[in-house]
Amino acid sequence: MIDQLQDLKERLRRFAEERDWDQYHSPKNLAMALIVEAAELVEHFQWITLEQSQSLTDDKKTEVEAELADILIYLVRIADKLDVDLYRAALAKLQNNSEKYPVDQVRGLSKKYNEYP
Amino acid sequence: MIDQLQDLKERLRRFAEERDWDQYHSPKNLAMALIVEAAELVEHFQWITLEQSQSLTDDKKTEVEAELADILIYLVRIADKLDVDLYRAALAKLQNNSEKYPVDQVRGLSKKYNEYP
Amino acid sequence: MIDQLQDLKERLRRFAEERDWDQYHSPKNLAMALIVEAAELVEHFQWITLEQSQSLTDDKKTEVEAELADILIYLVRIADKLDVDLYRAALAKLQNNSEKYPVDQVRGLSKKYNEYP
Amino acid sequence: MIDQLQDLKERLRRFAEERDWDQYHSPKNLAMALIVEAAELVEHFQWITLEQSQSLTDDKKTEVEAELADILIYLVRIADKLDVDLYRAALAKLQNNSEKYPVDQVRGLSKKYNEYP
Repeated sequence: MIDQLQDLKERLRRFAEERDWDQYHSPKNLAMALIVEAAELVEHFQWITLEQSQSLTDDKKTEVEAELADILIYLVRIADKLDVDLYRAALAKLQNNSEKYPVDQVRGLSKKYNEYP
Repeated sequence: MIDQLQDLKERLRRFAEERDWDQYHSPKNLAMALIVEAAELVEHFQWITLEQSQSLTDDKKTEVEAELADILIYLVRIADKLDVDLYRAALAKLQNNSEKYPVDQVRGLSKKYNEYP
Repeated sequence: MIDQLQDLKERLRRFAEERDWDQYHSPKNLAMALIVEAAELVEHFQWITLEQSQSLTDDKKTEVEAELADILIYLVRIADKLDVDLYRAALAKLQNNSEKYPVDQVRGLSKKYNEYP
Repeated sequence: MIDQLQDLKERLRRFAEERDWDQYHSPKNLAMALIVEAAELVEHFQWITLEQSQSLTDDKKTEVEAELADILIYLVRIADKLDVDLYRAALAKLQNNSEKYPVDQVRGLSKKYNEYP
């Protein structure tokens, strides 16, 4: 099995180098590019209900899939430029969240929930 | 080696189930949560120069790392709810971009670049 | 009656000048600041239903009001830096939209709607 | 002189009513639409330098102007749905900011600035 995030990182690095686009990839610019892609994702959901968002048509799903791909691409790219290990960072954050929101305290408490996912 | 994206997907699924938070995780809501995290990333870069964004202090880098983790967390979560394989989707997008921006045509052309990364 | 957008523009100009913050207010930076504020607005709505978003508590409404204010502040500021007349631009856009979405063609057509507000 | 924000509010209300689009304009949806427009603004600036953002071409400026208009349109619309007086809210926020960032304490202090505009 290959390391998917590592593989993507290397492919994206090569992609930028071949095109001499590395010069544009400062973390500030990449953060902007990432949020632009996130907004293209949001756009697909802006006028539909929560229920409708759970049962997209195949065409819509294909479009949404491409937006998710774009977000991952910029996320991997900015993490590379900042020398961040995304997987390790996510595990640490998840550990953090587990302590911040203990199961026995937040379960079913939507008020608590409102302050967090 | 473990499959990192698959591992995260399962951990996040368990995290939500244990807290009964799955009910809040419609794709529409998750897309909103994702862009909110993307904006927290952008916030770190909003008043600094491109150069400064390339040499963050250690404290700042730690904060930025946590934002990147949050983005990945919601990205993996929404992909799971929509049954999207993030890695495969990113590879397909990258293949697409390679054809759209052939090396010999876009190299060093910042005008072309302006329309894309 | 005073011209509210003009009045805000002048107050914000003075505010930045007094603090010597004008140097940070390039349109690129201000666009980032604006989307960060827009995300703080989105954050208030991310886990609630469409119905709940229509009947906020007084506390929540006060918070949302402050986010709307922040968005207007950066919007007026960036428009000033780019020498854009916001009101005139909005009228032009509205005229445009009226022609693009004629009442007799789009009324009640949610499919059409999905592509636009 | 007319009250520009009030005038826009009424025009947008009429626009939505005529098309029967009011049903889609919950604050949650409108917050999403607003951030999507903010991202379209950000997109124009993502690959250019701070300096370049200060001297846009006429074509680019026309496009940016249309994005600013879209942001104002959704901002006025969501404020209407939430019964918020945008101008008053902005004045209150500005008063707040004046107290939070006193001229004699923050002038020229970019470190302080980093935490705020």
